[in-house]
Amino acid sequence: MAESAGVTALLKLAERPEVISFAGGLPDPRTFPIERFQECAQQALREYGSSALNYGATEGFSPLREWLSQRMRAESGRSCDAEEIMVTSGGLEALNLISMALLEPGAPVVVGAPTYLVALHVFRAYQAQIASVPLDSDGIDPDQLDARLSELESAGNPARFVYLIPSFQNPSGSTLSRDRRQPVVEICARHGVPLVEDHAYADLRFEGEHLPSLKELDPENVIFVHTFSKIFSPGTRLGWIWADPGLVRVAATCKLGTDQCANTLTQRILLDYASRGWLDEQIQSSIKTYRAKRDLMSNLLRAKMPPSVSWLEPQGGFFFWLRLPAHIQSDQLMETALKEHNLAVVAGTLFYADGQGKDHIRLAFSFLQESRFEAGLECLAELIKAGSSDSP
Amino acid sequence: MAESAGVTALLKLAERPEVISFAGGLPDPRTFPIERFQECAQQALREYGSSALNYGATEGFSPLREWLSQRMRAESGRSCDAEEIMVTSGGLEALNLISMALLEPGAPVVVGAPTYLVALHVFRAYQAQIASVPLDSDGIDPDQLDARLSELESAGNPARFVYLIPSFQNPSGSTLSRDRRQPVVEICARHGVPLVEDHAYADLRFEGEHLPSLKELDPENVIFVHTFSKIFSPGTRLGWIWADPGLVRVAATCKLGTDQCANTLTQRILLDYASRGWLDEQIQSSIKTYRAKRDLMSNLLRAKMPPSVSWLEPQGGFFFWLRLPAHIQSDQLMETALKEHNLAVVAGTLFYADGQGKDHIRLAFSFLQESRFEAGLECLAELIKAGSSDSP
Repeated sequence: MAESAGVTALLKLAERPEVISFAGGLPDPRTFPIERFQECAQQALREYGSSALNYGATEGFSPLREWLSQRMRAESGRSCDAEEIMVTSGGLEALNLISMALLEPGAPVVVGAPTYLVALHVFRAYQAQIASVPLDSDGIDPDQLDARLSELESAGNPARFVYLIPSFQNPSGSTLSRDRRQPVVEICARHGVPLVEDHAYADLRFEGEHLPSLKELDPENVIFVHTFSKIFSPGTRLGWIWADPGLVRVAATCKLGTDQCANTLTQRILLDYASRGWLDEQIQSSIKTYRAKRDLMSNLLRAKMPPSVSWLEPQGGFFFWLRLPAHIQSDQLMETALKEHNLAVVAGTLFYADGQGKDHIRLAFSFLQESRFEAGLECLAELIKAGSSDSP
Repeated sequence: MAESAGVTALLKLAERPEVISFAGGLPDPRTFPIERFQECAQQALREYGSSALNYGATEGFSPLREWLSQRMRAESGRSCDAEEIMVTSGGLEALNLISMALLEPGAPVVVGAPTYLVALHVFRAYQAQIASVPLDSDGIDPDQLDARLSELESAGNPARFVYLIPSFQNPSGSTLSRDRRQPVVEICARHGVPLVEDHAYADLRFEGEHLPSLKELDPENVIFVHTFSKIFSPGTRLGWIWADPGLVRVAATCKLGTDQCANTLTQRILLDYASRGWLDEQIQSSIKTYRAKRDLMSNLLRAKMPPSVSWLEPQGGFFFWLRLPAHIQSDQLMETALKEHNLAVVAGTLFYADGQGKDHIRLAFSFLQESRFEAGLECLAELIKAGSSDSP
């Protein structure tokens, strides 16, 4: 809690306009077509009238659940009924509800390490025991996952779920390889441990072959979580869970005690928007935007960084994950860069539950304007080359 | 949890159009001026552009916090800085965040009994020990509150907070009298126990003198919670906390793990709407709507109910709280009325933590169309007169 508060305070500094910020994983504002949003807002209020403004069903607006279930069927080739879908106030709230439903103090959650820092915050809020399995450039290693699950079982306290972001992972940018996907779902099923799949960035693939979701590979045991924050708009606070109807009912009972229902107005705006085909158009156009930004980052990193810095080229998503030379401490670098150079990056330590990550930083290329990339990366390279993250 | 799920299932039945429902405490759809919402939605997207659609600050949109702090100052005559205000996803989320910040398993929360059923659901989710102090027609009795707080102290487990809805209370419709307000805040302060004041219905006063909020009487020890759900629109999911900046910071850290920020689009729509003076106009017009509905209910209750039924005339808010003759069981009445007569009321038992309330039902007059009041109350009167809530 105290740690999260410290991070929040530091990241607030990153919001000042003079700061060149690679910190927050926000979408590029240019991906939001304002006029289309305006048109759908008018249409939603015209079509649904006061029901767009009153309380709504805790599980979500039925026609939106229906639309989502159709989309999930089309994408996965699996059956998906509307009662398997729950609309949430963003993907993070989905994780919060699942945690509320499945965790109690001391319950283990297995995560790929590094992982989404706010997911760690959520699991810690339920006093979960976070069990890390290292990620490499192909995602989580099935054998190590298997061993970790066995270890927890032997200790008499089996994992309540495994949490993975299989595609364009936050923060590492890595993607679980095709060869590992089947073994990973089989291992979780064999151990009887649900697998929570966070699909947040999966639609934003810049190149390479489409990979099946884990949900598609094992509809029974996988709890699928997705968000509209990266493909539509985070400010509308919408995401969804695709899970068995029993878990949806429990999560709805939990949601009754958090915010009662997702925003009824923005659910209707979204449905109208998506029904016109505009969501798919936005995704295609966003891919172009982010691919160009990724390419620019990639070129600049190669041009500016000393050879002691290495990274994986992300095939989608929002992030570069830089490995630093051993003498650099990422948390000190983060602080120095922000306080003395108006440059914001996120220290790798924040993405681990166990103090690792001193040798990594995360750079988000999604939000920052391209015109500021070069100055930012040049400054970062100088700080690294200076051989120390201490103030000069 | 199981109990809440059962209630949810039952209340879902109440949503069928053929049901005459006095169950849900939803606002009257006629209180939402659709065209004004449309205009403000356009304006918010025009004025704020993409920032109306991206992530926002966890504590809320700064200009809205500023506007709320001004309003709180004007209403209370007390100082209120923007950093004392946090925007939440409705009033219930405010209670959830406060509970997350202040409770741990076994921690006592003192409530006036009966109380808001979803608040009980929230406190139970944190495994709080719910300590009830009975309400009468003037609200909570200061001496009994004092005794209850002392008792918990003596047991070595003092209350973490007291939760009250001082005006037009849900479900009882009662209002904490002027004479009791000062003693109540003094007792809480003396025991060092924060008082959470839920102001949800307070703006909807039909008659009688204005009473000071508890926050106004003790700005130090009172945590003030309000919602836009009854005075603007529940579907926009907005409420706020007014508390000391330290608690606001802790609640923001909690919110980072629930839904990260309140809806950024509807925050801007609301600010535009309120800045034009339309919120105050809506409140005045809503008061007229609800007063007329209360009057109609009152007349019909007097005309239809047998003398064995009694109630308090609410001076504001959404609810009548009916005391039934002793041989009626409210939970059976609720079930029979709904399943056999398409009539929805809420059993009093749901508003108590300790099984009381078999002799009461709650009737919400806020949402149902006036044209259906008479048939509904006639049916209810017949069921009560039939001397039994069992099927005939």
